[in-house]
Amino acid sequence: MTRMIAPARLSGDRHPVRRRSAMAPPTPAPAVARGAGSTIARERVRAVLADVLAEARAEAAGTGDEDYRLVWDELARTALGGKGFRGTLVVRTHDALGGREPDAADRVGAALELVHTAFLVHDDLIDRDFRRRGAPNLMGTVLAAATARGLPPAAATRLAEAAAVLAGDLALGLAHRLVALAAPAAAHSALQDLLSRTLAVSVRGELADVRDGLPGSTPTVDGALETAAAKTAMYSFRAPLAAGALLVGAPAETRARLDEAGRRLGVAFQLVDDLCGVFAPDEVTGKSRLSDLREGTATVLMLLARQTPRWQRIDTYLRRELTDEAAAGVRGELAASGAPQQVAGLVRAELDAVGALVPDLPPAAARLLGELTATVSAAVEEAERHVRAAG
Amino acid sequence: MTRMIAPARLSGDRHPVRRRSAMAPPTPAPAVARGAGSTIARERVRAVLADVLAEARAEAAGTGDEDYRLVWDELARTALGGKGFRGTLVVRTHDALGGREPDAADRVGAALELVHTAFLVHDDLIDRDFRRRGAPNLMGTVLAAATARGLPPAAATRLAEAAAVLAGDLALGLAHRLVALAAPAAAHSALQDLLSRTLAVSVRGELADVRDGLPGSTPTVDGALETAAAKTAMYSFRAPLAAGALLVGAPAETRARLDEAGRRLGVAFQLVDDLCGVFAPDEVTGKSRLSDLREGTATVLMLLARQTPRWQRIDTYLRRELTDEAAAGVRGELAASGAPQQVAGLVRAELDAVGALVPDLPPAAARLLGELTATVSAAVEEAERHVRAAG
Repeated sequence: MTRMIAPARLSGDRHPVRRRSAMAPPTPAPAVARGAGSTIARERVRAVLADVLAEARAEAAGTGDEDYRLVWDELARTALGGKGFRGTLVVRTHDALGGREPDAADRVGAALELVHTAFLVHDDLIDRDFRRRGAPNLMGTVLAAATARGLPPAAATRLAEAAAVLAGDLALGLAHRLVALAAPAAAHSALQDLLSRTLAVSVRGELADVRDGLPGSTPTVDGALETAAAKTAMYSFRAPLAAGALLVGAPAETRARLDEAGRRLGVAFQLVDDLCGVFAPDEVTGKSRLSDLREGTATVLMLLARQTPRWQRIDTYLRRELTDEAAAGVRGELAASGAPQQVAGLVRAELDAVGALVPDLPPAAARLLGELTATVSAAVEEAERHVRAAG
Repeated sequence: MTRMIAPARLSGDRHPVRRRSAMAPPTPAPAVARGAGSTIARERVRAVLADVLAEARAEAAGTGDEDYRLVWDELARTALGGKGFRGTLVVRTHDALGGREPDAADRVGAALELVHTAFLVHDDLIDRDFRRRGAPNLMGTVLAAATARGLPPAAATRLAEAAAVLAGDLALGLAHRLVALAAPAAAHSALQDLLSRTLAVSVRGELADVRDGLPGSTPTVDGALETAAAKTAMYSFRAPLAAGALLVGAPAETRARLDEAGRRLGVAFQLVDDLCGVFAPDEVTGKSRLSDLREGTATVLMLLARQTPRWQRIDTYLRRELTDEAAAGVRGELAASGAPQQVAGLVRAELDAVGALVPDLPPAAARLLGELTATVSAAVEEAERHVRAAG
């Protein structure tokens, strides 16, 4: 699930799921994604995405197969409907480090957006979610189209699920193609390694996240933090920072610092997202605050609450439909348990560690990390206000 | 479904499905896959596959995540358990055309094997098949492991399906990586185009195949032939031939001829497979002949039979469990309908057209196509014997 703090910060890749954000990690807040440099970077990535997707859609329309055409139309809608955080971060990192491969950065940025698209589609498939942000997702649109032309429900569902499997494959293929064709010779092999590692780590995180959400599983706080690092931090923070740095040929120490910063920012983002998932008003997160509670999702927040004496009372509220009153009750119990405050403390520790990495970076890269840090910092403060209001 | 003619020809990529072979096309018979040159080519591809998969497995084992480790172990079992037809065909085409990039050919061959692996895994997922060739497939193995450690059936199934989604993604990613890193500069961009086209056409064919197998669909003979060309011919014949030729820098006319030959051979293979699916003894195909009948699969064979006066009687046998006697009865009706003979005629027409392409090819490439043609020709003759025996 991807919830952020203020309505203005809502993005296209939110995820009303039964478990933690899995392959749909949090969205950046405005300071990061809406700055002046960021706007230009985002438009550059978006132009590449629009271009390659228009080409694929035209080809698909030419086949005369309506379902295949719909798959590409929906991939384009998904890829272009988000805020483009990951792609923008590639370009901004490249630019901040003084890179001279702007075209390659735009294309690798677009590729990471398509990796994100593939993960969203496959994540919704795994969760059997037919909607995202209150509207039908790719699978839901294929389902609706198949139903509209008279397919019985079971058949329409089967076609929609097949379309989701295959659509993710197409997006992943296109992402790889972009990287393979865009990479300058000096970064070609390193970018392939990065793409492989990104896929491997994200898949491992997603699998662990599915497992931890199953009945009978016994997730731990450490495990949930590790999963957040694998599934959220890797492809949303570490990979874009690394891609930008590789395109510039940045020295190994710079890349190592950016990588650690990316991991910590990703974990911090996920933790803030967990807090908002329970405490931020629905109109802020764009989805019901109750879903984590209703599903008994094993977030770090809930796993910490489980270790407190309040857990017995909290537990009575979980895994069932909640009235507004009951929801207020469980939020109060959670706030009183001290777990949200612990989560905020973990976020601050991650951000402090990022701050310690900044002085050794080139000034523009330090500023970029500073912006990202300030955004998460503002987000956790806002989350804490909601926690206090609930207590 | 992928059935061949004699037990010795059985391969690792058979597919006990409810519909036509989808992304698991037929396996080559021994003349193709077991010749002397072929044995060496297959071992070369296999060595690359074993190498990259051993590396991925070692990395996965290092993460300490047992489910993630199992996913890679199962990907390796799937990829190495087949006969390697597609990879071998890349290498043999390269060698036949006098290529001087043997290492690249081996690696691109291994990449096409991994594309095949990804398709098998995602195809089984789409079909909700937990077994292949009488043994648990990747999804089935994850299901068994999850069940063994005490997960309830619904949770174990959910984990297994997630593992199948993600495993296919990993295999597809590794395939792309191999092509991106193996391609000589002169063929780099063309191989990327080929890989994209292969994915696009195969996905379109798979989607059409799923759709035509749904209740309420109205498949046509022409549509079924087109689907066979898209889903079977493209990645099992056209792509390997094209990849081999691109690595050699073969002239456009040679590549065009090989492409047409690949399309025709792929369709012919699929048609023979449809015949064997109904008429060849179970011990030959490695699976029940009854499945196409039981599922009412819309093969070209069945669609042709539908246009004959015998269809009313044939139809009474379909979509239900059949005794041996009833199976013999429906096979007799089908044989008498003339549809199998029509299918054999279509196969011969495709093979004749391939024969017409051969004289303009370099001698070694002509021999390779001759071998492939002879194999399918022998297969259709054997299928016809089974048809006569049933009539």
